[in-house]
Amino acid sequence: MMTAAELAALLRAELHGDGALAVRRPCHPAEARSAEDVAVAMDHALLPLLKDCPARVAMVRADRVGDVPEGAVDAVIAVGRPPMAMAGLTAAFAPAPPVALGVHPSAVVEDGAVLGVDVAIGPFVYVAAGAEIGDRTVLCSHVSVGAGARIGPNGLIHSGARIGSGCTIGARVIIHHNASLAADGFSFVTPEKGSVESAKETGRVEATNTGLVRIHSLAAVTVGDDVEIGANACLDRGTLSDTRIGDHTKIDDLVLIGHNVKVGSHCMLCGRVGIAGSAEIGNRVVLAGGVGVADHVTIGDDAVVAAGSGVGNSLKGRAVYYGYPAVERERAFETHMLVGRLKSLFKDVKALKAAVGAAGVSMGRTQDQRDGREQ
Amino acid sequence: MMTAAELAALLRAELHGDGALAVRRPCHPAEARSAEDVAVAMDHALLPLLKDCPARVAMVRADRVGDVPEGAVDAVIAVGRPPMAMAGLTAAFAPAPPVALGVHPSAVVEDGAVLGVDVAIGPFVYVAAGAEIGDRTVLCSHVSVGAGARIGPNGLIHSGARIGSGCTIGARVIIHHNASLAADGFSFVTPEKGSVESAKETGRVEATNTGLVRIHSLAAVTVGDDVEIGANACLDRGTLSDTRIGDHTKIDDLVLIGHNVKVGSHCMLCGRVGIAGSAEIGNRVVLAGGVGVADHVTIGDDAVVAAGSGVGNSLKGRAVYYGYPAVERERAFETHMLVGRLKSLFKDVKALKAAVGAAGVSMGRTQDQRDGREQ
Amino acid sequence: MMTAAELAALLRAELHGDGALAVRRPCHPAEARSAEDVAVAMDHALLPLLKDCPARVAMVRADRVGDVPEGAVDAVIAVGRPPMAMAGLTAAFAPAPPVALGVHPSAVVEDGAVLGVDVAIGPFVYVAAGAEIGDRTVLCSHVSVGAGARIGPNGLIHSGARIGSGCTIGARVIIHHNASLAADGFSFVTPEKGSVESAKETGRVEATNTGLVRIHSLAAVTVGDDVEIGANACLDRGTLSDTRIGDHTKIDDLVLIGHNVKVGSHCMLCGRVGIAGSAEIGNRVVLAGGVGVADHVTIGDDAVVAAGSGVGNSLKGRAVYYGYPAVERERAFETHMLVGRLKSLFKDVKALKAAVGAAGVSMGRTQDQRDGREQ
Repeated sequence: MMTAAELAALLRAELHGDGALAVRRPCHPAEARSAEDVAVAMDHALLPLLKDCPARVAMVRADRVGDVPEGAVDAVIAVGRPPMAMAGLTAAFAPAPPVALGVHPSAVVEDGAVLGVDVAIGPFVYVAAGAEIGDRTVLCSHVSVGAGARIGPNGLIHSGARIGSGCTIGARVIIHHNASLAADGFSFVTPEKGSVESAKETGRVEATNTGLVRIHSLAAVTVGDDVEIGANACLDRGTLSDTRIGDHTKIDDLVLIGHNVKVGSHCMLCGRVGIAGSAEIGNRVVLAGGVGVADHVTIGDDAVVAAGSGVGNSLKGRAVYYGYPAVERERAFETHMLVGRLKSLFKDVKALKAAVGAAGVSMGRTQDQRDGREQ
Repeated sequence: MMTAAELAALLRAELHGDGALAVRRPCHPAEARSAEDVAVAMDHALLPLLKDCPARVAMVRADRVGDVPEGAVDAVIAVGRPPMAMAGLTAAFAPAPPVALGVHPSAVVEDGAVLGVDVAIGPFVYVAAGAEIGDRTVLCSHVSVGAGARIGPNGLIHSGARIGSGCTIGARVIIHHNASLAADGFSFVTPEKGSVESAKETGRVEATNTGLVRIHSLAAVTVGDDVEIGANACLDRGTLSDTRIGDHTKIDDLVLIGHNVKVGSHCMLCGRVGIAGSAEIGNRVVLAGGVGVADHVTIGDDAVVAAGSGVGNSLKGRAVYYGYPAVERERAFETHMLVGRLKSLFKDVKALKAAVGAAGVSMGRTQDQRDGREQ
Repeated sequence: MMTAAELAALLRAELHGDGALAVRRPCHPAEARSAEDVAVAMDHALLPLLKDCPARVAMVRADRVGDVPEGAVDAVIAVGRPPMAMAGLTAAFAPAPPVALGVHPSAVVEDGAVLGVDVAIGPFVYVAAGAEIGDRTVLCSHVSVGAGARIGPNGLIHSGARIGSGCTIGARVIIHHNASLAADGFSFVTPEKGSVESAKETGRVEATNTGLVRIHSLAAVTVGDDVEIGANACLDRGTLSDTRIGDHTKIDDLVLIGHNVKVGSHCMLCGRVGIAGSAEIGNRVVLAGGVGVADHVTIGDDAVVAAGSGVGNSLKGRAVYYGYPAVERERAFETHMLVGRLKSLFKDVKALKAAVGAAGVSMGRTQDQRDGREQ
């Protein structure tokens, strides 16, 4: 059990009031049920809720301590950068992994698999021959680990995740429900030039796909240290070289990383992002929700691509991109603003035509007139 | 076994002809194989198919009974609103849940889990300690239910679905293959201001992500009564308070609901929708396929957002939205129409410039001319 | 073990040098570790890497044989169309299926299921009564096969894939991790006219969704021969008739195929594509990454739809489409180009107004002036 003072020290926050109070659970001020809850009110609008809240300890922004209703709580933990305080707070109360140490009797660990010390292997887990599970790594129920795959220490692999044969997973990696590592890449070729090649060359479909022949994926997936991979995300195998994810990169649910893709370190790939085969993503790149990246393009370090954008061409680093196709944000916003003013532009041109016509100036016929339409 | 008359009564439909005929299976008129099939021909174009169809009973729109080919069938069930008739018809013939009553010998139900009456627990199901499974609820093969999760009565959880610890699921909830409830939220923070914060403030990348620190998800997911959740959909945990889905809301395959999101009742979230963290969706909202919703925005009751739209800002209720970014449909369509007329506008302006030039009126140089391009 | 000469013969490629050399593993020239590796350098830029590469055999484009650094390798396999050579090469070295012949002792195969000769049924697989598994088909760990489902010969079903009851799967089908076949369709109807119907009719929300009644999915999914289905893809059941996928069609990860959809043969549906209910896709259609297709539309044979496009209306075949909404590529590109020139158009109009004004020609007030804005 922790005290308010201990929690404040952990968060490097100031403590006001009674530091000896026990703290057992952080919660929204409206959901506190016990004196030992910590009411988290870093949003200013929540401060009034502290008044009728059973929690005796509140966590607020340091610059808002004065706004805590008088007598509402007996201790205030006053924090600086709120999101960082949330990180520290939630880490302090994070639950233990949901699997008991050792190998559950229902699990199947093949001969020749190597288990580190203090691993926790849950129900219905399958570990194939030649796989290695690092020290203290936890495999939750229904996980499968293919032949020769290696998972580093202190990992947490949630239920139903699939780690294909030959994968290399670093230390402290978290993989969520039903994620797929090392399904085969989506890579097919036609014996003769096909419709897509024709479309890329000429913009037209001048050939049909007479057959679809499979390029097999002989390599696997390599994931660095401290990576997190979301639920139902898919990271496909490479063809000859592994698909690679750099250290500290975070991948959200339902993200698709195609075959041969290289992603740098400290990237954030938000929900429903898709990166097509052989693309290369730099370090510290942020792809917001739903962004699509075409095959073989590169994105430079520190680029930020706004939600829903489609990246069809390579992008330089350290800039913000937006749109479909994605262009630099300033340009996208300028275009957006100009399009928003089109109605008035059409009116201006109509007025100009009338004025110039009235002044007796001759004008060529316009397309609309040729089409028989009236503006 | 049911008769044509019983089926008509169930659907509150008119019966024409022999109500004593047996009906065993509804089908497309072209796929009928037996006299006891019901040929469903609510689309007018299918009526001619009844002629050579072995089915003796047809289901048609009430206003089309006269168009059934003479002598084609021996009974006609004439229905009003066809989609509602389909709902009733398919419910009448829906198969029983695919799991036998009781606990399959291969399943693992931990001590301290509570099973209601007449549950059906399939092969390789794992139910953790403290979980509660409601009366008559069915868990198909390979489902996992985390510690302390509670599932209401009459639920149907399909194979491979993951119900994380602490979730609360209402009555009559259907969850499809490999859906993920209560994976951790995608929530990371940088110790100092990072690239995304900088981009939001200034539109530029003026800071790099020097570290990505995890905000843990301490809460779970709460799902109301009569909710349906599609295959491979992902509903992430809340940080301090549960992510919430209201009663009667229907969620399609591959939908992503981020941490802390609140979704109202009777919503329809179609395939591949993504809702980012802390967004709030009202009641009876329809998000069509692939719609993305940014974090922290709100969408009002009865809003309808067209397929593929990107919602970057909060939207009022009871309106139709379209586009990227999503705006009210009328505005989006007006813009679309104006953009479609740009070619003629460029021609008009060119003609005006020529006319005005010919009239000897002086004009400033345009950007195109400065760029050395000819219009 | 294979020799360089045997590999060249298999690929119908020319062999230069020592054909007796053993070849054990194809790899990127920078990743070769052994003399028996085959360094694959079909990209011209990789040729210099052969110099310091331990591999003794290289595979290069026939028209680049002269550019192989002198003495770098002892045999060169010179190929024609490189992607086809990759297909042949990777097939030659593809690993055996990861499951031993027979039924793993942990698997559950219900009485009344029919297993073909030489099947391989992995750990924790569940096969329901009445299911049929074709000769030599492999079910990897944690797969479930529903009652009455039939899978053809020589199939490979990867871990965690779900094959719902009643499905029909052809020969040589590959299904990847955690894919879902035959979850129920997303099909709901309101007793009275609802918001979406109202929006489609009038563009406005003039009705609310007073209830959402389920249309059950009574049919299943039929998949042809030589189909491949990606990880976490979802193919939903049909209502009365099966959802159908034609022979040789390839479906990438995270693709959603709605209820009643018909997809032709030899299609390529790339990652994150979504096809809504009852749409019909022709033969040899290519939908690039993230494309969305509305319900009930049709797409003709040999159409190619560019990444990220939204198909709201039916499209003719043998053309390239682009955009949101998707239109023929030429039209989309023209519009894109015109929008890119808007800034100069606004300047031209401003100059014209000034010029015409200076000339004393009267003009009507424009919208911008009425709004009190200055252009």
